[in-house]
Amino acid sequence: MTGVPGKILAVSGGVGGAKLALGLAHALDPVQFTVIANTADDFVHHGLQISPDLDTVMYTLAGLSNQQVGWGQEGESWNFLDALARLGGQDWFRLGDRDLATHILRSDLLGRGATLSEVTRKLSLALGVSHPILPMSDDRVSTIVHTATGEELAFQHYFVRDRCEPEVTGFHFDGIDTATPAPGFLEALADDDLALIVICPSNPFVSVDPVFSLPGVLDHIIARGVPMVAVSPIVGGLAIKGPAAKMMAELGMPSTPVSVARHYLDGYRGALTGFVMDDQDRHLLNDVEALGLPAIVTNTVMITLQDRITLAKAVMGFGINL
Amino acid sequence: MTGVPGKILAVSGGVGGAKLALGLAHALDPVQFTVIANTADDFVHHGLQISPDLDTVMYTLAGLSNQQVGWGQEGESWNFLDALARLGGQDWFRLGDRDLATHILRSDLLGRGATLSEVTRKLSLALGVSHPILPMSDDRVSTIVHTATGEELAFQHYFVRDRCEPEVTGFHFDGIDTATPAPGFLEALADDDLALIVICPSNPFVSVDPVFSLPGVLDHIIARGVPMVAVSPIVGGLAIKGPAAKMMAELGMPSTPVSVARHYLDGYRGALTGFVMDDQDRHLLNDVEALGLPAIVTNTVMITLQDRITLAKAVMGFGINL
Repeated sequence: MTGVPGKILAVSGGVGGAKLALGLAHALDPVQFTVIANTADDFVHHGLQISPDLDTVMYTLAGLSNQQVGWGQEGESWNFLDALARLGGQDWFRLGDRDLATHILRSDLLGRGATLSEVTRKLSLALGVSHPILPMSDDRVSTIVHTATGEELAFQHYFVRDRCEPEVTGFHFDGIDTATPAPGFLEALADDDLALIVICPSNPFVSVDPVFSLPGVLDHIIARGVPMVAVSPIVGGLAIKGPAAKMMAELGMPSTPVSVARHYLDGYRGALTGFVMDDQDRHLLNDVEALGLPAIVTNTVMITLQDRITLAKAVMGFGINL
Repeated sequence: MTGVPGKILAVSGGVGGAKLALGLAHALDPVQFTVIANTADDFVHHGLQISPDLDTVMYTLAGLSNQQVGWGQEGESWNFLDALARLGGQDWFRLGDRDLATHILRSDLLGRGATLSEVTRKLSLALGVSHPILPMSDDRVSTIVHTATGEELAFQHYFVRDRCEPEVTGFHFDGIDTATPAPGFLEALADDDLALIVICPSNPFVSVDPVFSLPGVLDHIIARGVPMVAVSPIVGGLAIKGPAAKMMAELGMPSTPVSVARHYLDGYRGALTGFVMDDQDRHLLNDVEALGLPAIVTNTVMITLQDRITLAKAVMGFGINL
């Protein structure tokens, strides 16, 4: 992209984040743009290593993502799952026939000693993705959802099996204290050419927080003093996709971009330098700015590819000059 | 079946053997009939534990086997394999989308400490198979194919990847000396009610020999002195399916039922007591009987289910009275 004076790093969860990552990838050369994907929702299912957010980012950048259902691959079929159910296997996690190839190959390579970063690079290249996608860590980190009944649920059990029905009271990230950011992540943060970090419109609690909770990540960002802009995943009081708004209500905070901005400000030790929210929330702009955070409103609801690219450019234009 | 005075044990490889096993299953109650499946062609592919002969027997008895291609499941789709190839995975072994459920569930259960026998029982019951199917062993035994170039090939590499093209000079079964027959196998051989052992029309070298090479199997059979009848997999100089005839030619023996009978007689220490060959080979009946082996001719080419049942009854009627 003409006019971007350096490199951009994006932090993404699944679907919503991947949309903006795709817009950024269209606007930027591969040497300019890296995506860090949350892996705290990774889990092992029937012995297969599954990385839902990482795969959503990879499929989205490869142009393979399923536009209808919002996850998995286009042209997917479900014969494996049908046969699995017949055999008495657990079929609550919807593994498509094509998607399975990713999980089987990844599990096989990890079992032979490859790292998740190495596997991700190999699979991404095979799918023609030229922008680097990094898992946040090669170490296992697992989001655990605390619920009002006192039960602690593995994330995918909460998210998919139980359809986000349990009332959440908090989260922790099992393994985070001893996890190391993936090779290249801290180096990208320390890169003199890094001009902007973009927090994509993903779930603050379960998609974004794990990444910034990794030891060393915030330290590097604060040391460099690089601009960091977040795009609100909450629009008009709702999450475009996923349980973010429901979680906010259960955690006792209004489901507004203001709450998202405050969450990042409080949690990320002042590293956040700008905020992007949707036109629909223009009436809340003053409330965000009152937090001491520069903010803009624009269209953040990404329906078309052009929407994604336009938002990417708006975020960069705003963020880099902060 | 009225008139069968005891229990029947069948030893089977893949497709041809499974056809006769299905005929026997139709003729006999579950308490009367057990199938032992070869597992020396089992292998690990992309981290999945694959048991081709065992699955062919299971799918056949479940009524799920693919009649067109001769292996795998009916109504199979291949989207996984297509996606795997795109990701750079090895796609020479044709894993169907439905078939994958078996391999994934089995691999998962084995990884959690279940035995192959336990997994087979669980999957068989889920598919409605009431006759017991036992793997020959819960231990890993691997057929290695010796070739004229001196190269030794894992069986599925020879059989599927290299399409049986290399010239064979012999075989060995890696792990056989320390393998134990699966729970129930020796017990079935020692059962006072055992009336007949049937060697199904499977490849003598790579499907049947591994089973009888397991420590203790022939000892038990010889000690009990139970009748044992083999059905020739060679008909009119050809194998109905697979490389048996080609192997025989390469090993320097005529591709005839006589060679099959001699192979079992020489190899199984006199345990074979009867031989069944096809009508087409009636002219060779005297040659088989000249080996000191009682033999009959009948139709062994099983096209219809009735063919399978008719052959099963003929084999039992002949064998039990030996």
